[in-house]
Formats: sequence, structure tokens, C-alpha cells
Amino acid sequence: MIYLDNSATTKPDPSVLQSYNQVSERFFANPSSIHQFGGEVEKLLIKARSQVAEILHVQNNEVIFTSGGTEGNNLAIKGIAMQHQQRGKHIITSQIEHPSVYEACQSLEELGFEITYLPVNKNGVVSVHEVSRAIRPDTILISVMHVNNEVGSIQPVQEIGELAKKYPKLFFHVDHVQGLGKVPLQLADSGIDLCTMSGHKIHGLKGTGILYIASRTRLFPLFHGGDQERKVRSGTENLAGAVAMVKAIRITNERQRKSADNLAALRENVIHGLAKIDNVAINSPEIAAPHIVNFSVLGLKPEVLIHALGEKEIFISTKSACSSKQDDESRVLAAMGLPRERTVSGLRISMSYETTKEELDKFMKEIEIAIKQLKKVVG
Amino acid sequence: MIYLDNSATTKPDPSVLQSYNQVSERFFANPSSIHQFGGEVEKLLIKARSQVAEILHVQNNEVIFTSGGTEGNNLAIKGIAMQHQQRGKHIITSQIEHPSVYEACQSLEELGFEITYLPVNKNGVVSVHEVSRAIRPDTILISVMHVNNEVGSIQPVQEIGELAKKYPKLFFHVDHVQGLGKVPLQLADSGIDLCTMSGHKIHGLKGTGILYIASRTRLFPLFHGGDQERKVRSGTENLAGAVAMVKAIRITNERQRKSADNLAALRENVIHGLAKIDNVAINSPEIAAPHIVNFSVLGLKPEVLIHALGEKEIFISTKSACSSKQDDESRVLAAMGLPRERTVSGLRISMSYETTKEELDKFMKEIEIAIKQLKKVVG
Repeated sequence: MIYLDNSATTKPDPSVLQSYNQVSERFFANPSSIHQFGGEVEKLLIKARSQVAEILHVQNNEVIFTSGGTEGNNLAIKGIAMQHQQRGKHIITSQIEHPSVYEACQSLEELGFEITYLPVNKNGVVSVHEVSRAIRPDTILISVMHVNNEVGSIQPVQEIGELAKKYPKLFFHVDHVQGLGKVPLQLADSGIDLCTMSGHKIHGLKGTGILYIASRTRLFPLFHGGDQERKVRSGTENLAGAVAMVKAIRITNERQRKSADNLAALRENVIHGLAKIDNVAINSPEIAAPHIVNFSVLGLKPEVLIHALGEKEIFISTKSACSSKQDDESRVLAAMGLPRERTVSGLRISMSYETTKEELDKFMKEIEIAIKQLKKVVG
Repeated sequence: MIYLDNSATTKPDPSVLQSYNQVSERFFANPSSIHQFGGEVEKLLIKARSQVAEILHVQNNEVIFTSGGTEGNNLAIKGIAMQHQQRGKHIITSQIEHPSVYEACQSLEELGFEITYLPVNKNGVVSVHEVSRAIRPDTILISVMHVNNEVGSIQPVQEIGELAKKYPKLFFHVDHVQGLGKVPLQLADSGIDLCTMSGHKIHGLKGTGILYIASRTRLFPLFHGGDQERKVRSGTENLAGAVAMVKAIRITNERQRKSADNLAALRENVIHGLAKIDNVAINSPEIAAPHIVNFSVLGLKPEVLIHALGEKEIFISTKSACSSKQDDESRVLAAMGLPRERTVSGLRISMSYETTKEELDKFMKEIEIAIKQLKKVVG
């Protein structure tokens, strides 16, 4: 199998699963139970939290364990909206956000909020200047992703953070799901108040994630109850999941240090290879995250090509998994100003640090063959 | 170790963990990915859902996989409230609900909803007549738990369901977290529109759960995004968690069939044994779920006794884990009309089908010794 759909989800690392199992078997008590067994488990949870905090260079209490990226994005956006709506009901985001941000914002429109969806340039990048111009006295939140999940474009979130610092009443949320372990991001003193991370995109487990919430930030919880996780996210803590998340972040950080340049080189190689094939147009910008390449094969339905490659156990995707069963056009490619023949034919390969040059060479060989064969069929 | 805190959480069954691992390793693709690997995984998810539906005697599309009981309760209550607030803003619940229901309701008061918290009788049971009297034209939701988590009292939810049927515009939610696998509950044609279940209370995994949502029921999602789970709960599906949940429900159902009578007999035996000890008062009603016994040791702080037993590796609890770090008095025991000396001294043992008579005998022997020793110390 050549798995090139790592932005949809990754294969869990064996050591992540091992940690999960050990904790599940041996430390199964409820950390909120006041007996000694509960206390022992609570200590492990505190340790897991401080390990994440150390890796991310943030404070322990700023790390909230969640069930994943969609929860993190929804908690950040709706939590700020519900908590601070007395101050204003205006939110700024972009036209290229992941559905869990984009549709969370749309849902708030039903509740009387006003959302500004900022455009992007042809490289799929939001302008800091446009963000600045969109800020109003009633703006309570800016939500801009770090790395776009479809094309890999990198948003100027550190610069937007500097801008946001000048508006102390306004919160700034970054969806870092695709950036984690791929493109560095500084959280402390960054002007970023909320930052979403997911486990299963970095060889961790589905159902695990982190929302970074800066100390000063108050949210209306999505889950009320036992007051776990700084009262922001009630529910019995999934310690095994938290430990698995720590493990995954640690592994991905090490790989990033060692192999990010290699991954970027692999990406460049793929882009050059694909660009040579007839009817292929590269949609990803040149400067982008090292793991995502988006391209169109003009005149071919992407699902047909995906299926043909799938027959050879090569797995690539169209758009993001989270929007791949919806309508044909990619909202992200459209926002980049691409013509319709390209917005309806976008394909994505997304690599991990485990992806090899041999796999990519094989992929390029097979896609070229598949395109030729399919083109014959459609004429 | 004698673990008698199974209402806080249970030890995962080895076969549940095994299923989780198999799925995580082999079927890690994203079920929303349109390639063949995603399709294979999606089929497994459909199968898991239909297996749950078969066990619960409901339709496949009525099973929504969640991250646990707290999410299920919050999604049910806030989801109905946000979706149907135009019709009315009145909700009926009880004074003895789990914090994830009780505090979800309280949070809605901040948003302009009016909540009726029904009292209970001395046995910790809500009256159907009182529910009926509380219904108003603007009532949109009734939320009453099946089995109380602190004392084990069983609420007349099937009767309330019959009552709710007469009000087709009103939704009825049941928190079944403590009842699942212990006290039978009929969902189909029951008048119950929403029903919360949790995995880790039945030897499943933390971070897993189900919300039953009857077909006709519309909710405002807590998580917007990729439209997974009938658009009610977006986010990459945790297939391994879903399969683990199916396994746990199946196991607990088998055990319930075989061993519920035995568990009830063990409970009665413990109640008789404890009642004979000086200064012990039983708080649980006679007719109750087979796994929970709540009692007070008058004049002793519960945490001291818990600690003393913990030294002997016997783990019991005070109140629920989800409220055990809050103030001293049990809201549930207070609602039952017990005097303060008992509401501040409540202890709970909660058994599982794995609990043995030998463990309980040892527990009773050790608690009697501990009470005598501690009584000497406090005079």
C-alpha cells in the first residue's frame, strides 16, 4: 500500500498504541476519584499535561485535552462567541478554513452573529492588511488556520498575532491541525489565544486532541459537568488518549527536526514530476507546508482517477476528507481564483515523514499511466 | 486490589482493547475518504452502527457515536435547546441529575432558558405526576436520568416516555449512563427521543459513547464541520472507539442476562452487612439498580474512610467522581430529604459483574475495622 492521504488521517505509530494500552490496562481509575488509585492516575494526567506544555513552551494550565480537531475548533469559536457576545457579535475568518471552522462560523450566523470571510490571494494566503481592515469595535474573534488542509498554503498567523496584540479585547484562534509537526508555530507571547491540534493527523489516535487556551481566555464550554480541564471541557478525562497524544506530538516533533527538509525536497520532486505530465496543473503554491501537493488533471473526474490508483493500492484524495462527499467544487481552489475546470478536478496527495521517494516515484509512474488510459476512454 | 468504584469508571475488558487495537492498526483510513481504503473502513463503521442498533432495537441512523456521556448529555440538552428555542425556552429536569445534565441546564439559564428542577421522594425517585404538572406550552425538553449515579434509584422513565408521547412537540432525553447493562430500558416506541450511553462505565474505553437520537429529532450540533454522524456530530469518526463501544455493549448485555440477579443478591448482602455496623446508615433505596450502594458513616469524614480503605487497596468513593472535588454536601442525598449529617458523609460502593462475594466480604470486614479505629481517634 502506498498511502498518500495523511492529511485525512495517519497510521497510528506502534509506540503510541503501546502507550495507550499500557495506560488503559494499568491506570484505568477516574482521575477525579479521591481514593489513592484515582490520585495516582491524576498524577499521570498532570505529568502528561506538563509534558505537552513543555514541548509547546506554554503553561500547564493552557493545555486542554479534547476529542480532536473538530471539537477544538468548535469549542474555540463557539466558546468565545457565546461567552463574549455581550461585547460584540462580529467574527473574522477566511474563505479557506476547514469545514469545522467554516461551518462553525456559519452556524453562528443562524444565532445572530456576523462573520467576515476574508479572501485569499492566488497562492491561497490571507493578507494581514485585510485582516487589519476587517477589525471593528464589535469584533470579538479572528480565526485563521495555520496550514491549509487542501493546498498546504501557510497563513501569516504570527503576523496576525502581532496585530491582534494591539486589540486586547479581541481573541485570536489558529487551527493548527495541518501545521503541527510540519510548520513551526510559536504560541507563547504570540498574540494567539487559542490553538487547535489533533492527534490522528500526526500518527496519534482518533478521538484525541488538544486545544491550547491562553490563561487569560474565558470560554463558554460546549460540555458542562464535572468541571474537568479548567472547567472548560467537562467529562471523565481520557488519560490513555492524553498520553497517546503526548507520545504522538513528541515523535512528530523529533521527525520534524530531523526530516522536514527531506520532506520538502520530496514535495518539490513530486511537483516537478507531476507538472511534466500532460493536462496536469499544480494548484498548491510554491511556498507551502512540506507534506501537501494539490493538483488538477484537466478533463478527468478526480474520483475516477482516485479509484484507478486505488486499484493499485495507491491512496490519494480529492479536497479534504471532511468535505469530500459534498458538492463538486473545492471552496479553497475557488477562493484562490482558479477556473472551474480546476476547482472541480482538484486532487491531493499528503505525505508523512514515513513517505519514501520510492513510493512517490511509483505513484508518479502509475498516475501517468492511469491518466493516459482514462483519457483514451473519455476521448 | 478490590475496586468498588465502577460507577466512576471500569477496567477496560481485554477483548475491548484487543478490538480497538486491531481496528487502529489495520483500518486506520478516514471513512470519509473516497478511495477504496476509506470505503473499506466506512463499511466497518456502518457494520458497527448496525450492530449497536440491533442490540438496542433501534434504527441504524438513530445511533450517533460520541466521545462519552458528558458529550451525549450536553449535545442532547443544548442541541434541543438551541434548535427549538423559537418554540419555547422551558426545560424540565430533576434535582438529582448527573452534573453533565444538571450543569448543562444551569448553563442554559445564563442564556435565557427557564429550568424546572423537579424534587424526588425519600427513595430518590421523581414522580411522573410532578413531571406532568410541570409541562407548559413552552416546554421543549424533559431530561430525566434512568439510574441515579450516587444512590442507584431507578426513575420511571418508561412512564415519563408514555406521558411525553402525548406532547409531540416536546422532546424527552434519558441519561442512561448508569443504567446501561444494569437495568433494562426500552427505546423503540418508548417516547424517549434521546438517550445517552457511555463506554467506560461498562468496561469499554474512555472517550467513547453513544447518543441515541430518534429519527424525527432535530438538534443544533455542538460540533459543526464535515457532516459526519447524520450531520449532528462532525469530526473524523473514531472507528476503533466505535468498534470498542459495540464490543463493550455486547459483553455487558450478556453479563446482564446471566448475572443481574446475582449482582442484586450481592448488593442486598452488602446492604445487610453494612446496616449491622454501628453508625452506618444506608442511603440507597431498597428498590434500586443492582450495582450501587450509598451509605453514611455518621460522624466520620468520608474522605478519611476512603483513604483508610485505600491503604488496604480497597477503592470506594464519595458522591460521584464528577462532583467529588466540589463542596461537601451531596445534592442528591439532600434532595432525598436526608439530614445534613448524612448528606455530608455519603459513601458509595459501585460494583461490576466482575465483583465477587469474597471481595465484598473483605470490604465489609475492613470497613468495620476502619470505622472502629477512626472512631477511637475522633473520640
